[in-house]
Amino acid sequence: MRVKAGVLEKPFVFGIKEVEIPEPGPNEVLIKTKAVGICGSDVHYYVEGRIGSYIVNEPLILGHETSGVVARVGSNVTHLKEGDRVALEPGVPCGCTDFVKRGLYNLCPSIKFFATPPVHGTFAEYFIHDANFAFKLPENLTFEEGAMCEPLSVGIHATRQGNVGLGSRVMITGAGPIGLVNLLTSKAAGAGIIAVIETHKNRATMARECGATHIIETFDSAQIQKQALDITDGAGFDVVIECSGAASAAQTAVKVLKPGGTLVFVGLFSQAEVPMDLNAITQKELTYKGVFRYRNTYPTAIDLMASGRINVKPLITKRFPWEKVKDAMDCAHKEASSQIKVMTEW
Amino acid sequence: MRVKAGVLEKPFVFGIKEVEIPEPGPNEVLIKTKAVGICGSDVHYYVEGRIGSYIVNEPLILGHETSGVVARVGSNVTHLKEGDRVALEPGVPCGCTDFVKRGLYNLCPSIKFFATPPVHGTFAEYFIHDANFAFKLPENLTFEEGAMCEPLSVGIHATRQGNVGLGSRVMITGAGPIGLVNLLTSKAAGAGIIAVIETHKNRATMARECGATHIIETFDSAQIQKQALDITDGAGFDVVIECSGAASAAQTAVKVLKPGGTLVFVGLFSQAEVPMDLNAITQKELTYKGVFRYRNTYPTAIDLMASGRINVKPLITKRFPWEKVKDAMDCAHKEASSQIKVMTEW
Amino acid sequence: MRVKAGVLEKPFVFGIKEVEIPEPGPNEVLIKTKAVGICGSDVHYYVEGRIGSYIVNEPLILGHETSGVVARVGSNVTHLKEGDRVALEPGVPCGCTDFVKRGLYNLCPSIKFFATPPVHGTFAEYFIHDANFAFKLPENLTFEEGAMCEPLSVGIHATRQGNVGLGSRVMITGAGPIGLVNLLTSKAAGAGIIAVIETHKNRATMARECGATHIIETFDSAQIQKQALDITDGAGFDVVIECSGAASAAQTAVKVLKPGGTLVFVGLFSQAEVPMDLNAITQKELTYKGVFRYRNTYPTAIDLMASGRINVKPLITKRFPWEKVKDAMDCAHKEASSQIKVMTEW
Amino acid sequence: MRVKAGVLEKPFVFGIKEVEIPEPGPNEVLIKTKAVGICGSDVHYYVEGRIGSYIVNEPLILGHETSGVVARVGSNVTHLKEGDRVALEPGVPCGCTDFVKRGLYNLCPSIKFFATPPVHGTFAEYFIHDANFAFKLPENLTFEEGAMCEPLSVGIHATRQGNVGLGSRVMITGAGPIGLVNLLTSKAAGAGIIAVIETHKNRATMARECGATHIIETFDSAQIQKQALDITDGAGFDVVIECSGAASAAQTAVKVLKPGGTLVFVGLFSQAEVPMDLNAITQKELTYKGVFRYRNTYPTAIDLMASGRINVKPLITKRFPWEKVKDAMDCAHKEASSQIKVMTEW
Repeated sequence: MRVKAGVLEKPFVFGIKEVEIPEPGPNEVLIKTKAVGICGSDVHYYVEGRIGSYIVNEPLILGHETSGVVARVGSNVTHLKEGDRVALEPGVPCGCTDFVKRGLYNLCPSIKFFATPPVHGTFAEYFIHDANFAFKLPENLTFEEGAMCEPLSVGIHATRQGNVGLGSRVMITGAGPIGLVNLLTSKAAGAGIIAVIETHKNRATMARECGATHIIETFDSAQIQKQALDITDGAGFDVVIECSGAASAAQTAVKVLKPGGTLVFVGLFSQAEVPMDLNAITQKELTYKGVFRYRNTYPTAIDLMASGRINVKPLITKRFPWEKVKDAMDCAHKEASSQIKVMTEW
Repeated sequence: MRVKAGVLEKPFVFGIKEVEIPEPGPNEVLIKTKAVGICGSDVHYYVEGRIGSYIVNEPLILGHETSGVVARVGSNVTHLKEGDRVALEPGVPCGCTDFVKRGLYNLCPSIKFFATPPVHGTFAEYFIHDANFAFKLPENLTFEEGAMCEPLSVGIHATRQGNVGLGSRVMITGAGPIGLVNLLTSKAAGAGIIAVIETHKNRATMARECGATHIIETFDSAQIQKQALDITDGAGFDVVIECSGAASAAQTAVKVLKPGGTLVFVGLFSQAEVPMDLNAITQKELTYKGVFRYRNTYPTAIDLMASGRINVKPLITKRFPWEKVKDAMDCAHKEASSQIKVMTEW
Repeated sequence: MRVKAGVLEKPFVFGIKEVEIPEPGPNEVLIKTKAVGICGSDVHYYVEGRIGSYIVNEPLILGHETSGVVARVGSNVTHLKEGDRVALEPGVPCGCTDFVKRGLYNLCPSIKFFATPPVHGTFAEYFIHDANFAFKLPENLTFEEGAMCEPLSVGIHATRQGNVGLGSRVMITGAGPIGLVNLLTSKAAGAGIIAVIETHKNRATMARECGATHIIETFDSAQIQKQALDITDGAGFDVVIECSGAASAAQTAVKVLKPGGTLVFVGLFSQAEVPMDLNAITQKELTYKGVFRYRNTYPTAIDLMASGRINVKPLITKRFPWEKVKDAMDCAHKEASSQIKVMTEW
Repeated sequence: MRVKAGVLEKPFVFGIKEVEIPEPGPNEVLIKTKAVGICGSDVHYYVEGRIGSYIVNEPLILGHETSGVVARVGSNVTHLKEGDRVALEPGVPCGCTDFVKRGLYNLCPSIKFFATPPVHGTFAEYFIHDANFAFKLPENLTFEEGAMCEPLSVGIHATRQGNVGLGSRVMITGAGPIGLVNLLTSKAAGAGIIAVIETHKNRATMARECGATHIIETFDSAQIQKQALDITDGAGFDVVIECSGAASAAQTAVKVLKPGGTLVFVGLFSQAEVPMDLNAITQKELTYKGVFRYRNTYPTAIDLMASGRINVKPLITKRFPWEKVKDAMDCAHKEASSQIKVMTEW
């Protein structure tokens, strides 16, 4: 089957081409695409042609924040039928491997993830996917919300890794798309005080609207520490969710945590190594937890939006018809600090 | 110091008397009472003069859902000062015992709990209390909300015991005061679907207003099971919070849980033994968790109310000046099915 | 391929027949059988032709405690090669379903388990199996030990479900094969005091040899409670692992647990319902946990035996050449109270 | 009451003096000392007169690994009586503070810890202590074993923080006293493979005798990584317990962990900051956990030794009568690399 798709050939050489896609296998579904959000990683491939050791050597269809309609189902698929509206979880492990059996499928080296070379993504009229990673959307959710399951999943997983719950006092470093989904999920999980570090005015405003109880508008470590103590009556935070990838944020996080607190790492750092006070881990008995993508979050994301616990719509700041996917990519690239989520639609 | 207090002498013999209270010790505070809610256990003592093995043999001051103002502080107390508005956690262990050291202070046999014979409660102009169990109220909380920390604590503890979190699908059996606080805390913790079993119209309405996504208006087990499957697309619930103390509710809970699900016991049963399908625990790998009062919930309750995550005000359905504490008790007794929380105020 | 296999046709009609087995698929391995232990469930099918709703309507190959040698590997299999010695985990889920993704694959309704109608078992010269459920044995383990991974897995899973760890004080009800593997795994996990209830002399002796620190030789509840208090200096046990399926054992367990303790259900009860004191769950804040087979235990079982932490050899009390599998079954049936594990060997 | 005690006045000025000790309060016990081990921190104070911000400004009695006999009990003490043999947990919080209530009493800033300025230690004929932190020794344990509860507690707490359990594959960096107790507790908790990095011959031998399955005799990171892969069949370790305080060990630990693995920090680093690859935390979804002293470990230590799960006797490599406490300190100082535990006895 030949379909039109948004293909990246090399940095900034990105446009709609016709490509051939296979028939769905017995455990797969064919999806007619309806909405795909643009993620920072899409932009990164678009601009640099690589992310770390993942290099775009062959033309690659980008896009991995996706919803659509089931167009055909494989012979073994029983939980979906033609016409079902679905959100698509982008990463699929190869089978029941060691990590999968332990419920850590996102850590399995065998995983195939949309738009991660050499696996194609979803900027395409149609694509096929493992049916177990296609989740039916209830009627009260839009396709955009279906696509937003992906970034929301990062927040859900970080919230779980940080054990954020009723009354947790949380600090989030940065109010970009990832900081904001973490804000939404922390709030939904019952966090009391939620302070966000953000110096950019628009983002600070957005954070306030999304439920931040305090905004810390400085990157100065001493200032942040002072405000952190004020906000928490001298006790420090239970959890810091590091979404900025800034070395100074990680270093400051250790200082504003309460003894016994947890530091969740979500952001990626540009430095290979960051100087850290390891004795603080011992003396305050801190916990560090990493977040690599997510697992078991799509049903949760759907229930949270469907029950009204979380509203992601304000995060979608710009929409493009999918034919203008290159314009959408340019917008996401050039307006990175003012746009939160750029959405393409079919 | 002589103060007026609401003293129970024997069933239905309850009125205001003058009693002597001691000076606060070095780790204690003297509290001027401002609001005390009436709990089902107060009514139980009022009507029957006992709860199980706890018997009112000597005159007993009732009341344990309490807020007030610090009137004097013991010599060692540094975190509170005269004039501070506080909520009072009613149960105080005797010291750093085995249970306390393990963070399970509510299970310590040494615990002294307001209005549990022979320990007096807080229907009194003044009373003394361990300063570590007095929690400062922020300015935006009322004394009523301070008193509501107590019932809310039961919900917070049950929510934690049931590991209710983002997207959990929860069933709550009964929408009395305890069912409703569990509803509020389950919602605050990010539960998606929350179904409440309640046949009483007023309570069902209240449950809907407090955030129930579904009301199941029957006690018939087969009917409940059918609706449970409908509500959860055939999967069953992740958590059932048993708040009714009805044997049939416990028996049905086992059937509506998803494999791997959790049944939280909050309600007390009138039967000494309830016939249970123990093989269901094995074959569905269920978890049962008990809830005995609460621990480490007061700071959480305060943060949840202060940050607006939870609003308990609708639960307070009737108010009395404290001088009419007997009328308040009669009201709580006679209108048990229509009142949620009766509050007395100074 | 035609192979000889031990086939059950109806109760007590069990013998070696020739059957046809398929070629291994791309993710499968063909196994030449080397050792198969006889489990209580095999005997149950042999004697009654059914276990609960599982009924032997068609001829069924029994056996599920299995080790062997890889005879052929499917085209996708990379972690095994011809000649590898392996232990075989008997239950295989159909794919990455909801339960599998959450690490609870043993609870997936899609699971296919050896010798559970209509799925054939391993009393056969050869059989095929999913390669992800075949685990390589190190050189210092025998085929018998490989087969013992299966019962040992039940102990490992129960130990984990009960959170048995350093210094846990554990009571195990019954020293049959399942009680004994729980004894071995509790000891290996660092339990301090391990008391076993067992009135049968041989089994009590075996329990002592396997590391029980105390044997309680009575079924009388009052007696057990008295001894439990003596053994634990009045504190009660942290964990009770119920392996007997006796109603009185479950009822007594609740009484000998320390507040905050855990009751693990492993045994199956013959009664549909057992009268239980549900208020004890609340007042002592107990946890109940079910054990349904096991998950993620085979690599653990292998490491525990290979590193010498656990020695299962004393549990193998009788061996038969596989041609005498019917005699082996009769022995396991008739000498149930004196034999622990009857092993058949190729 | 005047007693003789080992008092440090300034670096290397340490000797027996007469000091005055108070009467036991109502919740305290007077202890006649029987055995005190010398810890690295005692030696550190002896040599440098300080540890970080803790400075010996006033004469200080050293010693905190202690057992003794109850000589007198305070009026409220019911669980102990004169003549009881006890082990003494050195850190006592001031009361039911926030950290205590959450079961994290070791993190409470109010804690008073033996031989940490300005709190005196136990190199003395008699001393008083909070009765809740005195643990009765069973008859089959010696006073030396009672004193060993302290270092063993560090291993127990680290094992718990690292969630080391049945079949865990563990690497321990360093086989000094702390590495060795971690080895004993990891083994007791059911760890399968336990690899220890140690280049010192004597210590490597001791590690082998204490249950290490592999010794890695190099500090070269590439070599360690290669051996780690060999030992774990390419999978990496589940847990690394960092006991060396060496920056290179922490940096290498990250590389030898399996995705999802845990790095437990026990050792203190001399550098204020160590350059760490923070992206590894994210990409491998690692957990870091700190260990600050210990909590709730004394009853566990006693049960583990009394039941024979752990034998600490080989760790005691030298004994001195307490009158020679200065010689003992010199021995611990000068023979640091050959002695494991130097014990003083009354």
